[in-house]
Parts: sequence; C-alpha cells; structure tokens
Amino acid sequence: MSIREQGYFNEENSADVVISRIAKSTEPRLAEIVGVVTRHLHAAIKEIEPTQDEWMSAIQFLTATGHMSDDWRQEFILLSDVLGVSMLVDAINNRKPSGASESTVLGPFHVPNVPELPMGANICLDGKGEPMLIKGRIMSTDGTPISGAKIDVWQTNDDGFYDVQQKGIQPDFNLRGVFRTSEDGTYRFWGAKPRFYPIPDDGPVGKMLESLGRHPYRPAHLHYIIEAEGFQKLVTHIFDPDDEYIHSDAVFGVKKSLLAKFELIDNPEIIAIEGANSSFYKVVHDFVLAAAS
Amino acid sequence: MSIREQGYFNEENSADVVISRIAKSTEPRLAEIVGVVTRHLHAAIKEIEPTQDEWMSAIQFLTATGHMSDDWRQEFILLSDVLGVSMLVDAINNRKPSGASESTVLGPFHVPNVPELPMGANICLDGKGEPMLIKGRIMSTDGTPISGAKIDVWQTNDDGFYDVQQKGIQPDFNLRGVFRTSEDGTYRFWGAKPRFYPIPDDGPVGKMLESLGRHPYRPAHLHYIIEAEGFQKLVTHIFDPDDEYIHSDAVFGVKKSLLAKFELIDNPEIIAIEGANSSFYKVVHDFVLAAAS
Repeated sequence: MSIREQGYFNEENSADVVISRIAKSTEPRLAEIVGVVTRHLHAAIKEIEPTQDEWMSAIQFLTATGHMSDDWRQEFILLSDVLGVSMLVDAINNRKPSGASESTVLGPFHVPNVPELPMGANICLDGKGEPMLIKGRIMSTDGTPISGAKIDVWQTNDDGFYDVQQKGIQPDFNLRGVFRTSEDGTYRFWGAKPRFYPIPDDGPVGKMLESLGRHPYRPAHLHYIIEAEGFQKLVTHIFDPDDEYIHSDAVFGVKKSLLAKFELIDNPEIIAIEGANSSFYKVVHDFVLAAAS
Repeated sequence: MSIREQGYFNEENSADVVISRIAKSTEPRLAEIVGVVTRHLHAAIKEIEPTQDEWMSAIQFLTATGHMSDDWRQEFILLSDVLGVSMLVDAINNRKPSGASESTVLGPFHVPNVPELPMGANICLDGKGEPMLIKGRIMSTDGTPISGAKIDVWQTNDDGFYDVQQKGIQPDFNLRGVFRTSEDGTYRFWGAKPRFYPIPDDGPVGKMLESLGRHPYRPAHLHYIIEAEGFQKLVTHIFDPDDEYIHSDAVFGVKKSLLAKFELIDNPEIIAIEGANSSFYKVVHDFVLAAAS
C-alpha cells in the first residue's frame, strides 16, 4: 500500500490521517496540542458512537455556549469549571513542593488595584451578615515567618454576591482588601462569614448541570492571592468545612488542606480580647509559600 | 480513606471525581457521553500540560467559533469537519456490508424538493464550464439492477460555488437534479465538470488551518443521495482522482472507492453517439445499495 493510499480516511485510522496533515505546521506547539486533542476526540467518539442527531446536539450545545459568552459572561470558562478542567489546569501549573500550601482556581471575581488597608481593618462595608475575624501567618517551607507579604483577599457578602456582581447595590470594594504581614508574618482582618452561592446557571452549562442531576453551588469560601519576594505567588481559597456543599463544589475547587474551621466565638472574655462587641466567627489559617524557582 | 475524602480533587483522580458527580443523572445516555468526554478531555490536558495562557487561548478560540456561527454559517460544524470528526461520525453511522458503496459527508449545501428531471437532462443551467456526462447503474449487493431508484445530485458550478451560495447570481436549482433509474437500473444526465473549492476560511477555523499549514480546499466532487425501497439510503460523493487536492481534502471526505475517472472525450464518433456537439468529460460510476436492515 502506498503512502497516499494509507492516507484515505477510515474508521480505524481516522485520527492518524488527520494528524498526518499537520506534520508540517510552522507552529509546533499548536500542532502538538491539536494532535493530542484530535487523538482523544476521535477515541471519545469511537467509544460514544454518537448518532447523527447526538452529534448535531453537541454542535448546537457548543454554539449556544459561544452565543451566551460576552465581555461580562464567559460560558466556556464555566463549562471548563464544571468539567473539572479549570482545576486540572490549575493543578498542573501549580505543583508545589511538599509542605507548601495548595492552590485553587482564581475565579472570575478578582479585581486589581484594591486599596491596601491597615492590619485589623474591617473589609465588610455593607454591614450585612455575621462578623468574621480572619487571621493567620505566612511562612516559608522551613517555618520562617515572611514579613511584608502582600495578601489580597475577596469574598461574597451575606447575600452570596461579590461587589462586582452588584455594582450600585454593594459599596465599591465591599469585602475586598490588600494587607501586608507584620514582622512576625501574621495577618489579621475582619470580614463577614461568607455564603455558598450558585455559579451563573441560566445558560447552556446550567441546563447541562440540571440534566446531569448536579447543583450549581460553590461552598462558602474566602479568596486569597499571597505574594512575597523570593516566593511563588499563591492563588487559593479557604473553605468552610461545615458548608452543606463542601463535598460537592460545582467547580471542584475544594482541597482537604484548604478547609479552615469557621468557629463561632461567644465567650465574652474572648469577644473582649479580640475587640468585638458581640459574638463572631473566627477562622485561623496559616499559609506556607514555596520558594521561587 | 473515607468516600468523602476520596472525593477531593487532585491531578491524579481528577476525571474520576468529576464523573462520580454524574452517577445519579436521570439522563443515562447524556451522563455516559459527558463521562466519556470528561475522561478523554482530562487525559488530553494531562498530556498537553497547557499553560494558563494556552488554556485561555482555547477558551477564546471556542468563543470566537461560537460567535462566528449563525443561521447561515456553522463554524463548529466546520471545526468538526476539519478535525475529521464529521467523517468519523459518518463512518460509524454508515457501516455497510461488504460490496456496498461507501458513504461520505452530506455537507451543508443539499437542498430538499429539487425538481425531478427526465433521464438525460442537463442540470447545468448557467452554461459555464466544461460539459460532463454522468452515468452509471444502481444495483443491489448481488448485482441485481434497481429500477426506480431516486438519485438526488448536486455540485458546484465552474466558479466553485453551489447555487445557494450565489443566490441571484446562479439560476435557481443550477446543477441540481433528481432522477429515477430505468428498468435496467441505469441513470444518465449532463452537468459541468466540478471544481475544487475552499470551505469558508475567513473565521477562526480558517485561521487555525493556516497556522497548522493546512489548505482549506475540497477536491472536485459530485454529491449523491440514492434511495430505493428496501435499501439503505446512501449519502456519498464521487471524486475527480486527478484533482490536485484529491489526497488532502480539507474535510477528509475522500475514500478510494469513491474515485471516478473524469475522462475527456474528444473522439468525434463518441461525441456523436452521446448526442454532444463538442468534446466533453465523461464519468461512469455504479453504486451498490445495502439491503435495508
């Protein structure tokens, strides 16, 4: 059989025929990526054996997902999130040395250039929800405290929305803040106990979740980006282990090491020591940064 | 380790964690499909190890592909076509018994309710290009001629466009026709020698092809849908084996059994016998229909 005859497409050689066509690409990384995608796509189709109608449904789903996306809504990122792809890409790009804190997804609600606040400030500007004291220490993998580390935090308000989802309703920069660790590597600020919330579920991805018997909720969490000179940037969350969705985060962001007890403090002495007026929640969580490579 | 602890996502168990979430779907076929897609998608990502920027480029490519699609243009079908997915789905859905003619993709340019024409009619209404006589026989797998088989044919004109791509420029139903085979199973009509043409390449899929060093052309071909009572419908093409793109069809539609010599006839005696005035091309191709199952 000549090389040309081998080139005819059939059910057995389908992926090889497609991949052989891109062997001369001048963009080798793109060719590699398209090659791997083609091989797995053909393998999936051989396993699924879709009818023509099922194939057309897939085309229509992808088209609707594109049409749902604009500058304010990215339905393909949601699709990547709910299939665990975003978390997998995050894991691949953030392999940490033993002992370093684990990363999780950035999510779509981070805002740059948030004002830096003094340690102990309260980022809850709408006064809603239950007060929460968040504190801990930033360290290197050998346990040395990191002073001057930048901590960028953000969370939902008590209605389950980020400020940028409710512009004009929530105060600007509500429940966001940037802090710098003290000499001893510690940080401390006040927020509100975060709430679980649904990812946007009024599009094709939400419909798919429903058909699959899946809910759209993310368990309550607090976002962190932690940066310090000489260390790898850490993008992560801490999660409320008592949240009802803690074992079924719609985007698979939960890791065991990121669970942090949201503890109710109602002892009058401790309330007084922490400078509060009434009962509050407290979460203490330390982070360990990996050295820059 | 408890079942719940196993549920935490990590790089190794990522696909299993996602798939375990859809085990209770009330749509088992959808759950099966999403499960297979998830497993292959995660395997592909582990192999590719995309950077965050590459992942975002993929999100943007899919979004642009959705935005390019509307009622008149289906960029996701083009993507399926150029990755060989459409042909693979066609192959899976059209496994024919030994001896039966092979199928290939329908393509987007079929038109229903085309007028039935008498055998020997000329479907070339714009008078462009080189005349071509197309004839052959429709048979069952045991060689019995099939009389009254319906043959629905369509092709590009000499400029490389289908009539529906040039409404108002080409006459309606130019280079389309429906015929019925004679008692002896034969068919015969006149058209124009078809031309190679590009698939629409001004969108994201065209840009991808260019980056991959691939051209957008389909080799010259003639479309057929053949139907007869008691037999499986056959959707196929015949291809010009001398076309410069015959070994590199952008959508992988070519099969060896679908090559049909487009022969130049310039012998005055044969020209007279076939009722022509000048030289013409001739293609003779028989089709074998599989019995209905």
